[in-house]
Amino acid sequence: MSEEHSSGNHPQAAPKAEVVAVDGGPAAPSKNALKKAAKEKEKAEKAAKRAEEERKQKEAAAASDTAKHLYGKAPEDYIAKEETPLKALTEELIGKQVTLTARVHNARIQSAKLGFLHLRKGVYDIQAVIAEAVDSGDGSVSRQMVKWCSGISTESIVLVTALVQKPLEPVKSARISELELHIQRCYLVAEAPEKTPILIKDADSAVGETDAEENKSAITVDLNTRLDNRVLDLRTALNHAIFSVNHKIERLFQEFMHKEGFRKSETPKLLGAATEGGASVFPVTYFGRTAYLAQSPQFYKEMLIAADWERVYEIGPVFRAENSNTTRHLTEFTGLDFEMELTPYSKEGWQQVVRMAEDMVLYIFRHLPEEAKSEIDEIRKHYPAAGDFKLPEGRPPRIKFSEGIALLREAGHEAKDDEDISTTNEKALGDIIRSKYSSDFFTMTHYPVAARPFYTHLDPTNPSYTHSYDGFVRGQEIVSGAQRVHDYNTLRERMKSLGVNPDDTGYKDYLEAFKQACPPHGGAGFGLNRMTMLYLGLPNVRLATLFPRDPQRIVP
Amino acid sequence: MSEEHSSGNHPQAAPKAEVVAVDGGPAAPSKNALKKAAKEKEKAEKAAKRAEEERKQKEAAAASDTAKHLYGKAPEDYIAKEETPLKALTEELIGKQVTLTARVHNARIQSAKLGFLHLRKGVYDIQAVIAEAVDSGDGSVSRQMVKWCSGISTESIVLVTALVQKPLEPVKSARISELELHIQRCYLVAEAPEKTPILIKDADSAVGETDAEENKSAITVDLNTRLDNRVLDLRTALNHAIFSVNHKIERLFQEFMHKEGFRKSETPKLLGAATEGGASVFPVTYFGRTAYLAQSPQFYKEMLIAADWERVYEIGPVFRAENSNTTRHLTEFTGLDFEMELTPYSKEGWQQVVRMAEDMVLYIFRHLPEEAKSEIDEIRKHYPAAGDFKLPEGRPPRIKFSEGIALLREAGHEAKDDEDISTTNEKALGDIIRSKYSSDFFTMTHYPVAARPFYTHLDPTNPSYTHSYDGFVRGQEIVSGAQRVHDYNTLRERMKSLGVNPDDTGYKDYLEAFKQACPPHGGAGFGLNRMTMLYLGLPNVRLATLFPRDPQRIVP
Repeated sequence: MSEEHSSGNHPQAAPKAEVVAVDGGPAAPSKNALKKAAKEKEKAEKAAKRAEEERKQKEAAAASDTAKHLYGKAPEDYIAKEETPLKALTEELIGKQVTLTARVHNARIQSAKLGFLHLRKGVYDIQAVIAEAVDSGDGSVSRQMVKWCSGISTESIVLVTALVQKPLEPVKSARISELELHIQRCYLVAEAPEKTPILIKDADSAVGETDAEENKSAITVDLNTRLDNRVLDLRTALNHAIFSVNHKIERLFQEFMHKEGFRKSETPKLLGAATEGGASVFPVTYFGRTAYLAQSPQFYKEMLIAADWERVYEIGPVFRAENSNTTRHLTEFTGLDFEMELTPYSKEGWQQVVRMAEDMVLYIFRHLPEEAKSEIDEIRKHYPAAGDFKLPEGRPPRIKFSEGIALLREAGHEAKDDEDISTTNEKALGDIIRSKYSSDFFTMTHYPVAARPFYTHLDPTNPSYTHSYDGFVRGQEIVSGAQRVHDYNTLRERMKSLGVNPDDTGYKDYLEAFKQACPPHGGAGFGLNRMTMLYLGLPNVRLATLFPRDPQRIVP
Repeated sequence: MSEEHSSGNHPQAAPKAEVVAVDGGPAAPSKNALKKAAKEKEKAEKAAKRAEEERKQKEAAAASDTAKHLYGKAPEDYIAKEETPLKALTEELIGKQVTLTARVHNARIQSAKLGFLHLRKGVYDIQAVIAEAVDSGDGSVSRQMVKWCSGISTESIVLVTALVQKPLEPVKSARISELELHIQRCYLVAEAPEKTPILIKDADSAVGETDAEENKSAITVDLNTRLDNRVLDLRTALNHAIFSVNHKIERLFQEFMHKEGFRKSETPKLLGAATEGGASVFPVTYFGRTAYLAQSPQFYKEMLIAADWERVYEIGPVFRAENSNTTRHLTEFTGLDFEMELTPYSKEGWQQVVRMAEDMVLYIFRHLPEEAKSEIDEIRKHYPAAGDFKLPEGRPPRIKFSEGIALLREAGHEAKDDEDISTTNEKALGDIIRSKYSSDFFTMTHYPVAARPFYTHLDPTNPSYTHSYDGFVRGQEIVSGAQRVHDYNTLRERMKSLGVNPDDTGYKDYLEAFKQACPPHGGAGFGLNRMTMLYLGLPNVRLATLFPRDPQRIVP
């Protein structure tokens, strides 16, 4: 590393004399210790002398180095040519000079005349050659420059000017394998320490992935270590790909919402009163009072329907104070919600809202394979199920809860009529539907009363069931929704029948919205991170969450 | 109101005998009280008898009513024709039958044969006529139906089938003034009580607006009353227009971000440690520990830059535990943030980020006048400054802080070189720039060190100033940003020099991101609600916030 960047490296202080305490009394240095200290001192002095000599040698070498303006710290007032981002490199640029910034993924010296830098930016990487005598147009690469470049610490950021060339044979280890860079200038932009807590090439693998020959050490980088060092972990091509898919799912959701005339809301996350008895709600100290964090935008999106918004959606954090330590639960995640007015007395009835949810899921999953093709390819290297599932040509299968139960029993599974279906049965049902309808996505409607909250509309033709639905992908719930009760008196009755006190402060404003007349409505809610997890077939929702929060973790 | 919907109205109980307490002893009814009670009882009995007779009369009238299937509660299994939304009505539909839902904005009876309903849906409203003998194709409108329709309580929701007609003269009081509806069917979808806490026509006005002749009572509907009854208040055309503009500002921001290659992040709002000493941060009880609500995504968006995201933006709630009770401060609002990698040694230098912020503001303000034309017209009726300001043809004016101070002094204002500019001076400077450059938008760069947080990059040519900027609209700050320190050691030094302890737990993960090498970067942050307020010239940020939160208010 050049002197210009060594400000962080102070000469090591001579070690203190070893101190041995006898019988717990005041410690006095022993003879041996004194001897050892003297030796250490001598050693340190020698090391300092050696370092000083090396520095002088380096300075001398630097003084005779005709390329010293081409590397290290950029000269004062250096103005770089316009950047050509790594991802924009194409064969058309062969023979041309480009300037770009990148991280050093790896650096090695081959000989005094030749070294290699593996450069990386996001999901893209390329091999760069640093060879003596390459002409920069402003002097040639020197041996000192080869040595310096090959010694740059992994994860440092450099600004290089280089010629784009075709390599003798494709560089298999790099994504941009058909091109290489011949370095002419190389300046250090930000320096990483010699050792990073985790290695990017180890973290760039599935959690628990052990079969890849080149990734043997990945086995030691467990999920917690990765999450503890999340900023480094997020630098991997795999994580860039995962969060690009996550971003695209959110964009497609918004695109669909706008196409359907929904308007985005931002409802408050700080609430004046806890609902549902205050279990699973985080209390907040609020100017001497207690406020609570919203565990869903449910009440507020319904209040906006009562305020004539007609169609409303929200994207925002939801907070769950549940002490669930599973691969599917988080205490904070990004909720995607919509709520819509239902046309009363329409032919389709309340299932307008089921169709909307189905269309939303189909819109996302039909667009992703093309819009996130390269990301999915990258992820498939580690999680082979990524994006791989069957979608129907037309409408997806839609069955009633009672039909689902019948199908399960037919296949020999036990299931009850009047309570929610278990996770195991959900997966079994997913398999049944897949073989019956050739679809990995289906919806199930008319859940029993006990499986749904008080605001769910009852089925007037059979009040043991509700106007509710869940959507499943690969046998796992991806979206959940219902028609809601919109009549004030009915809502109060429903609350009472489930032991919820409608006169509790937490329900005051919510109920008032219905008292002032609210149109029939229904909606849906789902978790963005869980959607990403299921689409990509990841084993843990934390892998699809930037900085996950659970009962054990609130950092980084 | 028809019997079908009177479940909420119980016959009034006879009043209890008046009780007078004598000398604090056990109360015994006085002679007068007994006499009065007897009278009251007689009165109540008479009233009950009268009510019973009326009910019988009504039943008899209903039995002879040939139109009874056309109004009131829809017949069992009634299937409505497809809805034509109110906003979709055009002159091409004249003479055609439509079915739609709407709220009753007002209802009045003219004669036994004729009544009027003023129908409203969102920002649209229309006059509907209910006249005897109008043919529905399935029977004709009866006098009973005229009476029932004209008596529907304000804010109730109805499903009507009607003929679209051209009124004799335009209905000035309605937005859809060139059409009217001749009602053929009218079913009650949701009934509002006789009295609502505030009247929509009163709330559909500027706060404190008293000059409008027809809105004299608005003077009594102050901001707090409106906010206490926010769901009703949000039903006004004015609020529909304001939040449509708010939504469009957010959409344009996202459009611009995507166009420029930014990716959306969802960073955690629950933090493991408080930064900046924990003042102005809300503590949260988190599984027996204390967590804190994020007061900005600043640290996390920088950490994502250190994770090679290159360009990142966030839209999400930010929480400020500041006891500021002003027209511009909230304890929770929607923050719009972006952060971008800066090309090092570029010709433009750090001001790449200033240009990005300027372009973002221009993109929003240049698209809004056409994309939100009708909303702005609606808002202008009450807030005449809405959307009315000068934008330059090309680049907006950009001045240095020191130049701003000089301009202020030239104009006779007092201003200091080394501290932030006051709100009064910001407005004065806005006026100066407007007359000098014909622009209501400008940016000011290079704020003094004391005016910016520790993570702001110093100006190496003059370290009393920083690589920071603010953007102003009409002399009020609309966006604020800077280049950030990206070097680990420099960042630690900057923290220490401002009395911030870099070894505080709250900074651990943040600093670690820089230790592992972070590219040069800068960004911007602004409040969505404040942007809407300034663009529309509203006097209070609460008017641009769905459910505002401040030190006094956490409901509804």
